[in-house]
Amino acid sequence: MSLVVHKYGGTSMGSVERIKSVAKRVAKWHRAGYQMVVVPSAMSGETNRLLALAKEVSGSASLRELDMIASTGEQVSVGLLVIALQAEGVDAISFCGWQVPIRTDDSYTKARITSIEDQRVRDELAKGKVVVITGFQGVTDDGHITTLGRGGSDTQAVAVAAALKADECLIYTDVDAVYTTDPRVEPDARPLKTVTFEEMLEMASLGSKILQIRSVEFAGKYKVPTRVLTSFSDPMIPIAEEASSGTLISFEEDENVEQAVISGIAFNRDEAKVSVLGVPDKPGIAYAILGPVAKANIDVDMIIQNAGVGGTTDFSFTVHRNELQKTLDVLKNDVQPSIHAKEVTGDPKVAKVSVVGIGMRSHVGIAALMFETLSKEGINIQMISTSEIKISVVIDDKYMELAVRALHRAFELDKAAA
Amino acid sequence: MSLVVHKYGGTSMGSVERIKSVAKRVAKWHRAGYQMVVVPSAMSGETNRLLALAKEVSGSASLRELDMIASTGEQVSVGLLVIALQAEGVDAISFCGWQVPIRTDDSYTKARITSIEDQRVRDELAKGKVVVITGFQGVTDDGHITTLGRGGSDTQAVAVAAALKADECLIYTDVDAVYTTDPRVEPDARPLKTVTFEEMLEMASLGSKILQIRSVEFAGKYKVPTRVLTSFSDPMIPIAEEASSGTLISFEEDENVEQAVISGIAFNRDEAKVSVLGVPDKPGIAYAILGPVAKANIDVDMIIQNAGVGGTTDFSFTVHRNELQKTLDVLKNDVQPSIHAKEVTGDPKVAKVSVVGIGMRSHVGIAALMFETLSKEGINIQMISTSEIKISVVIDDKYMELAVRALHRAFELDKAAA
Repeated sequence: MSLVVHKYGGTSMGSVERIKSVAKRVAKWHRAGYQMVVVPSAMSGETNRLLALAKEVSGSASLRELDMIASTGEQVSVGLLVIALQAEGVDAISFCGWQVPIRTDDSYTKARITSIEDQRVRDELAKGKVVVITGFQGVTDDGHITTLGRGGSDTQAVAVAAALKADECLIYTDVDAVYTTDPRVEPDARPLKTVTFEEMLEMASLGSKILQIRSVEFAGKYKVPTRVLTSFSDPMIPIAEEASSGTLISFEEDENVEQAVISGIAFNRDEAKVSVLGVPDKPGIAYAILGPVAKANIDVDMIIQNAGVGGTTDFSFTVHRNELQKTLDVLKNDVQPSIHAKEVTGDPKVAKVSVVGIGMRSHVGIAALMFETLSKEGINIQMISTSEIKISVVIDDKYMELAVRALHRAFELDKAAA
Repeated sequence: MSLVVHKYGGTSMGSVERIKSVAKRVAKWHRAGYQMVVVPSAMSGETNRLLALAKEVSGSASLRELDMIASTGEQVSVGLLVIALQAEGVDAISFCGWQVPIRTDDSYTKARITSIEDQRVRDELAKGKVVVITGFQGVTDDGHITTLGRGGSDTQAVAVAAALKADECLIYTDVDAVYTTDPRVEPDARPLKTVTFEEMLEMASLGSKILQIRSVEFAGKYKVPTRVLTSFSDPMIPIAEEASSGTLISFEEDENVEQAVISGIAFNRDEAKVSVLGVPDKPGIAYAILGPVAKANIDVDMIIQNAGVGGTTDFSFTVHRNELQKTLDVLKNDVQPSIHAKEVTGDPKVAKVSVVGIGMRSHVGIAALMFETLSKEGINIQMISTSEIKISVVIDDKYMELAVRALHRAFELDKAAA
């Protein structure tokens, strides 16, 4: 018998009516003979309400107590969903993270799962029950409640699917698939039937908000076939149709299917560019610049160093836009004087655009086509960075939408893959 | 070092401001050197909100899932109180029932505590922390969450105090003491400095709503000195003053203090009187009447049987007013025909008034004074029932307040005990 894990987000659980709709959908799968584990989020808005209450009591709350409070949102959700399932005539039982148990480290508010014991869940499944497990939370070895941080219920669902060796983890959300790019920017964007784990990881880390990046990492690590699909369709559509809808994140490159070269165009304007100009070109300079930045707890994304003329070089990197000022302060106060750089500049008006595709491993000319396309549109490339399956460029952010649309057409993403 | 347990009800935890006030009070005790365990209720209205949500999903929810949902109200409370305590500079930690653990049977929504393990709490107390424990909930041996039912957090607090052999359990509530009778009926009602466990049990079971009866039973069984006092006073009043305020439920009859003969007047109008008239006076008749009533799951309180004339007798008892019609149906359909009773009558317009006092054990004339007082006021007594420490009468309910005031004066309860 197939075992599947369903994950439902906060919007899908947003009201009593929506919860009843989720129950109808789960009941349909259960009646069709699937073994079912369901991981629902807290009702939308509930976690924020709870954290606001805590903040009203004190701005400097201990993280352990915040987890104690925030974890109740999911606990209410699982109880309500089981009640709705029982009203559909389905035998079901709810478990909190500590009851499974889902063990985590003790990094309160952003804990990481260390192990999941599956016996208790298996016992209930063997009795024919649907098992409903809280997302977003676990328990330490010392018996303290932890939460996985925002979006952690995606990760929890995938982790539970991995622990149970589920046939598939279905992530129900408010979009119907992963698209070749954001349809709000490019109306011809096309839903992808499949995407590889590596591509999804690049898309997720580049700002596609559909799946939390840690859940994709988990899916990759444990090779859990994971499907993204909508919870806003009619809950009673035929299973065969529903089970093949949305986008499947796959782990085996299917030799028989011609892989599209490029799967999608990702983009974000969350970053800012920082340059340290006229730096003496000698060993240790990258560490001299980035050491103090890392020490200030600032995450750095792209890093570029160009060999310059006359014994000096220019060093550029990107940081989150919110941390630009902090970064400039560190550089101007702690770095510039000691390395005798000529100038430190910052530019928040940049955007990063990336083409992502596992197919580029075996295809040449992807970079050339990308640069040609941007050139034709008169878009200047400020930084370039590449990995095995993606090429990213930093450009003036006013050209972002134009670049995305031009690349989408150039790589023929509006046309269905062969 | 003294160890005390504080219990705060839902109104005391009703808002962020109130929670901060509770934290100030607890911090004051902690700073004065007490080891502190605090058991707060859910914020007032929260449990009702959660149960209404569950009912909206389905009217026939499983009790296990209701407990899963309802228990979150207290979980939020303990987290918020710890955060408020930390803001007061007090080191504190919260525990759910399952974390202590507080073990219960599996009677969901009305579970009974079977055992409390104290090691985890003691370990935290030894570190100098205030330990905040959810009221109202526990965990079964199989790891399912249970709730103790409404008012269960009084019981939980007393049970925790018993397990920890606390020096005192202080129940903070919205009244400032146990009174000789309800001050709304008798303005001269006087707060009692002490009351014995047995008296409190009679008062609680007779309708005084200050403490849940099970918590009094628990206090009695484990001899936990328990004090009822207000949480609405200034949280910063001196500890010496606060620690001797309210009413102490004591377990040792202090030989050195003249015990008041009567401690208080209890009353309620929740009951109705039922009479089965003209019953053949022969063995087995009580069972023939009350067997079918018990079978219909109707609780019976007072029971009176008078020997009658001519071989017949009259049999009367009281039931909750809400169950009068159901009782009459059972009697008329199932009982009257088989025992050949002449008539079955019901009267909802009755009230029960009781004088309660451990002192009546060694004093005569209490019943006589009670009956004389009622007679002087022209109040007819319909039923009488006595225990070792109380005398109850059933009277026409329109005379209830008059009876309470007259008895309060007759037993000189408005005057302080010697």
